[in-house]
Amino acid sequence: MSLKSRKILGTPCANGAKLLFLGAGELGKETMIEAQRMGIEVVAVDRYANSPGMQVAHRSYPINMKSERALMAIVARERPDAIIPEIEAINIDTLFKLEKEGYFVAPCAKAVWTAMHRERLREAIASTGARTSKYEYATDLESFRKACDKIGFPCVSKPIQSSSGKGSYLLKSKKDVEKAFKEAEKARGSAAKIIVEEFIDFDVEITELSVKYVNEKGRDESKFVRPLGHYQIEGDYHSSWHPWIEDGDEKMVKKIEKQIYDYSQRIMDNLGGYGLYAHEMFIDLKNGKVYANETACRPHDTGLVTMASMPLGYSQFALHAKAVLGIPIQWHDRVIEPRSSAASHVIISHTEGWYPQYNVTGAYDDDTNVLIFGKPETYAERRMGVVLSCGKTVEQARRKAQASAHKVKIDAGQGWKGQEITEKHYH
Amino acid sequence: MSLKSRKILGTPCANGAKLLFLGAGELGKETMIEAQRMGIEVVAVDRYANSPGMQVAHRSYPINMKSERALMAIVARERPDAIIPEIEAINIDTLFKLEKEGYFVAPCAKAVWTAMHRERLREAIASTGARTSKYEYATDLESFRKACDKIGFPCVSKPIQSSSGKGSYLLKSKKDVEKAFKEAEKARGSAAKIIVEEFIDFDVEITELSVKYVNEKGRDESKFVRPLGHYQIEGDYHSSWHPWIEDGDEKMVKKIEKQIYDYSQRIMDNLGGYGLYAHEMFIDLKNGKVYANETACRPHDTGLVTMASMPLGYSQFALHAKAVLGIPIQWHDRVIEPRSSAASHVIISHTEGWYPQYNVTGAYDDDTNVLIFGKPETYAERRMGVVLSCGKTVEQARRKAQASAHKVKIDAGQGWKGQEITEKHYH
Repeated sequence: MSLKSRKILGTPCANGAKLLFLGAGELGKETMIEAQRMGIEVVAVDRYANSPGMQVAHRSYPINMKSERALMAIVARERPDAIIPEIEAINIDTLFKLEKEGYFVAPCAKAVWTAMHRERLREAIASTGARTSKYEYATDLESFRKACDKIGFPCVSKPIQSSSGKGSYLLKSKKDVEKAFKEAEKARGSAAKIIVEEFIDFDVEITELSVKYVNEKGRDESKFVRPLGHYQIEGDYHSSWHPWIEDGDEKMVKKIEKQIYDYSQRIMDNLGGYGLYAHEMFIDLKNGKVYANETACRPHDTGLVTMASMPLGYSQFALHAKAVLGIPIQWHDRVIEPRSSAASHVIISHTEGWYPQYNVTGAYDDDTNVLIFGKPETYAERRMGVVLSCGKTVEQARRKAQASAHKVKIDAGQGWKGQEITEKHYH
Repeated sequence: MSLKSRKILGTPCANGAKLLFLGAGELGKETMIEAQRMGIEVVAVDRYANSPGMQVAHRSYPINMKSERALMAIVARERPDAIIPEIEAINIDTLFKLEKEGYFVAPCAKAVWTAMHRERLREAIASTGARTSKYEYATDLESFRKACDKIGFPCVSKPIQSSSGKGSYLLKSKKDVEKAFKEAEKARGSAAKIIVEEFIDFDVEITELSVKYVNEKGRDESKFVRPLGHYQIEGDYHSSWHPWIEDGDEKMVKKIEKQIYDYSQRIMDNLGGYGLYAHEMFIDLKNGKVYANETACRPHDTGLVTMASMPLGYSQFALHAKAVLGIPIQWHDRVIEPRSSAASHVIISHTEGWYPQYNVTGAYDDDTNVLIFGKPETYAERRMGVVLSCGKTVEQARRKAQASAHKVKIDAGQGWKGQEITEKHYH
């Protein structure tokens, strides 16, 4: 399905364009804010009331997004100009049905269907000729053991369908096979099939944010945000920084970035549609090798850093909002550079309960923002906020964001709890 | 009344802090967005439904803000942690009453009372020792004629109580006296008294944004955003840019800026309270003279440019939101510098009617944002949006913002109308 270039904007809640968000967490919230700034009406759908995005939306519906009946009723009532999935836990058949009825699903139903499933995504990425790690599939403990042996140790196991790294495991040796298999069962989605991947001894894990949109002449165009770097802890995003590298060998950096943009273009074209795509890739700096890993068809948690690093209107959220509306992304170059060296560090909960409070004593710092997402309930490992810092260098920004985030303590009725994780941190 | 340093944030719509905005236009909207990003609950009050701020608020009340009964009922129901006036058309006696009851009114009721009235404000500014233009008061045509003669021509007349330059007139000679007197009667507020001011042949009109807040130790502190420049058309803000000057004699610029910060500190201290203050001043570059003109106790329309020029969390809106919440403003210097050279240009309506539409063909440009405020009704001269551009230089940014804003056409049922004003523009 093609998207039309939008020449006319109207008045929200009257004759203007309308965006329907399926999933309204912290990423949806920021995309909605960017849409609101352009005078666009936003409707938020999520599984619970007062989710972060609902708090800045014109209207909201708390429903079970697996329910076709509920989704169809809301769409029939709202008649949105674009339907924007933010999470995997959505009835995907309904998205295909809506697309057939003429609705624009961002970036397109097939891309969502592909990206939500590791096997389909892996095949799609490999089919573009992009370099990936070796991989095997398994369905039971026996085939899992075989797959691990074939790939060799260390290797990484992931359930076919999950998000935010849930159910992933880094197997160091044969001894880890049973533990890893059990971990996959805990995954959010279906754990029926498991993928075992070659462990890439990478230097940096990056996220490339690319955007496909229609220009004013109605033709498809792409732009690329200079890559950002990030690290994960237990498969979950913990800190990111922008740009991904500041002091590398210039020639090597240019060569690697060219490869990143090329892979991203191919993967984005293969998935199809219009909007922002977030490509996770591994970078082997010494050998100048890029490995495409995963792609999400929407703003990415690691991309929160672009709120601080990018110029106004060019964060991943603003780029996504524009692209799905048919508004052109104007920039003097194919690559959009960050304006500031910046970093993000998550504020993770180590407690659980309703209506958490945040002790922010000492958390405010120079050129630093403490964002609280406003989620009504917390549980262990839940992301409740993020710190965004700018600095003269990425390292300075990373140190500031980490120090600030670690000052925030959370209480949800069981006493104040800080962030005890020290792995991969500055000490 | 003093403000406490806020160490604990809660959950919005539950146990968190709450901001009540009296007036929810485009400036309130952006302050609310910044509060939402910190996980703060926001309640919007304005005279009409679906005002810009209401669209991003948790809840809203359309009422007559002159009604004490309505204001008191909302405050009793909401029990806000801060009450934030955004316009003059509010029952000021009610603000004093609420302050007495223990509510925090931003920056304080007396400052709002002073700044809403030209005579009181003029006396307050003059009492700090800041240089101002000469001025006289008049109540009828006869005393108005005398006042003009005493000040000399050219001179400027303004009703004592009005906003956005409504009712102001630049008198070039005696022949303009009657026309100017009539103009003052059109003012939004009371035209009973008129102020006649010496015309200052300034080179640049600037806005200084200063902020007073409590630091983590509970002590008062101030910070100053480097001044921005702006021009007005018929007394109304039309374009602004940041920083105010880029190529002046460095020593002279430093000297002038020192004077600006000094005046701003004194005026802010005199008015009292906590929050953001916007000081309009005239700069005579040749003689290095600064004239304090007016001060608003809240974000200013010319300050929209800080969304593009300042780092995340340091726009006038974010500074205001933090200050009224008791959150410290951390910065490595007393003066906060813009990160990008940027400019704003208003999108003005030259038509009237409900549910306007915007033709934005060709309006999107490199490093440029077209913001539409989403007002449900338009009328002649109403500000409906703004363009924010960044550039290598302020001049480049100004040219881009102007060109983009002039491409936007508005239709509210009477055909497409562009912006016909050419005065003071680049040609």
